[in-house]
Amino acid sequence: MIPHDTHLQIGSLLFEGLDQIDLTGPFEVLSRIPNSTYRVYGKTAAPVRDLKGLRLTPDAALSDAPQLDVLHVPGGFGQEALMEDAEVLDWIARQAAGARSVFSVCTGALLCGAAGLLRGRRATTHWASFHLLHLFGAIPINERVVVDGNWVFAAGVTAGIDGALRLAAELRGDDAARAIQLYMVYAPEPPFDSGTPETAPAAILAQARQSVAGITAQREATARRIAARLGIALPAVAAE
Amino acid sequence: MIPHDTHLQIGSLLFEGLDQIDLTGPFEVLSRIPNSTYRVYGKTAAPVRDLKGLRLTPDAALSDAPQLDVLHVPGGFGQEALMEDAEVLDWIARQAAGARSVFSVCTGALLCGAAGLLRGRRATTHWASFHLLHLFGAIPINERVVVDGNWVFAAGVTAGIDGALRLAAELRGDDAARAIQLYMVYAPEPPFDSGTPETAPAAILAQARQSVAGITAQREATARRIAARLGIALPAVAAE
Repeated sequence: MIPHDTHLQIGSLLFEGLDQIDLTGPFEVLSRIPNSTYRVYGKTAAPVRDLKGLRLTPDAALSDAPQLDVLHVPGGFGQEALMEDAEVLDWIARQAAGARSVFSVCTGALLCGAAGLLRGRRATTHWASFHLLHLFGAIPINERVVVDGNWVFAAGVTAGIDGALRLAAELRGDDAARAIQLYMVYAPEPPFDSGTPETAPAAILAQARQSVAGITAQREATARRIAARLGIALPAVAAE
Repeated sequence: MIPHDTHLQIGSLLFEGLDQIDLTGPFEVLSRIPNSTYRVYGKTAAPVRDLKGLRLTPDAALSDAPQLDVLHVPGGFGQEALMEDAEVLDWIARQAAGARSVFSVCTGALLCGAAGLLRGRRATTHWASFHLLHLFGAIPINERVVVDGNWVFAAGVTAGIDGALRLAAELRGDDAARAIQLYMVYAPEPPFDSGTPETAPAAILAQARQSVAGITAQREATARRIAARLGIALPAVAAE
């Protein structure tokens, strides 16, 4: 926990084709952390669209961000276009080096991996990309929220809400997180038990895997190229 | 359930000062409903800010919306400024009259009430405004999601995710909703049990009630004025 009188600079990366709730779920929590400034940063200050078309506008460009105390990296299919974007990867690496906390949601973990930050780190990501974590040198942990030192990883999409509440508790104590949870009325009642590969009906899982097969293959090819660049040694079986 | 080959027009109302996750939580679900067009409508097409500053841009203005099959009305403090806005209330009333489904989240219910749509209807809203529902002639139901005929009400903020999944199931069947839930990895694990007035620690609830006392008093004064305009008869005790 950080002293209450220490002001926190919190920032999220916003990019074209992100999955909006990777950002907006945590936004609801991070924007309510006491004694903090929370801003959203894009490559430029221009509006972007999430992968389903929601139009979001950054508060400022990456180059205008101060050193952040909390760096939040969301995911979504648009992450793929940034995996070899030196400006964005350098920004993530530089911010992460100076931050008190780094918070990765969904395939934001792949961006952090491409920035060379996952080596030896316990991490998680969306189930469709989970098998790619080792390509970045990470130790994959199949849990909804994984805390490793000053890093918090949330698995897919809506896990960002749970991860952000964990992060709020780490930063400002359990009661601060409880107060935010009450405001948000976060006492979820999912109408079905279909939120993970382990619980979803087999036919629905098979169809879901099929629908992301293309992007997943592309992500894997990119991850292997990056693993080679980062000099990450892969077991022979994984390189098949 | 609606025939799969019937294309659905889905639309959300976006306004200055809304609580962004009242819109973005449902967005994640509604934007993935098969065979549908989902757009976000504002008073104008200009960008707005949510109550914590997130910058969102409508796809089009209210006047450009077709008759919607699904109308989604979010809430948030900014709802108060629209409670006597004839253009917005007329739009809600007109769209609701022709829609197959109406979906209210959080204090979006108060907007629907001001549009004269809650008389005799089982409804819910955010806990801080729950005691105001009767002023619009509604039957208050203290549940997270309330379905009344072709209406779906979600209580506060994050309840919109649960409500949207219920709505997706009503529109396209349970398996369509399950597939969306799997994609969203919606298997929540809140780190605390503090999401409702019934479960939050007493001191945290007291502080939360205090922090919304001002806006709640304002909402009540507005609601009483509207009740008088709508000719809703109130029990003497409620008019104290």
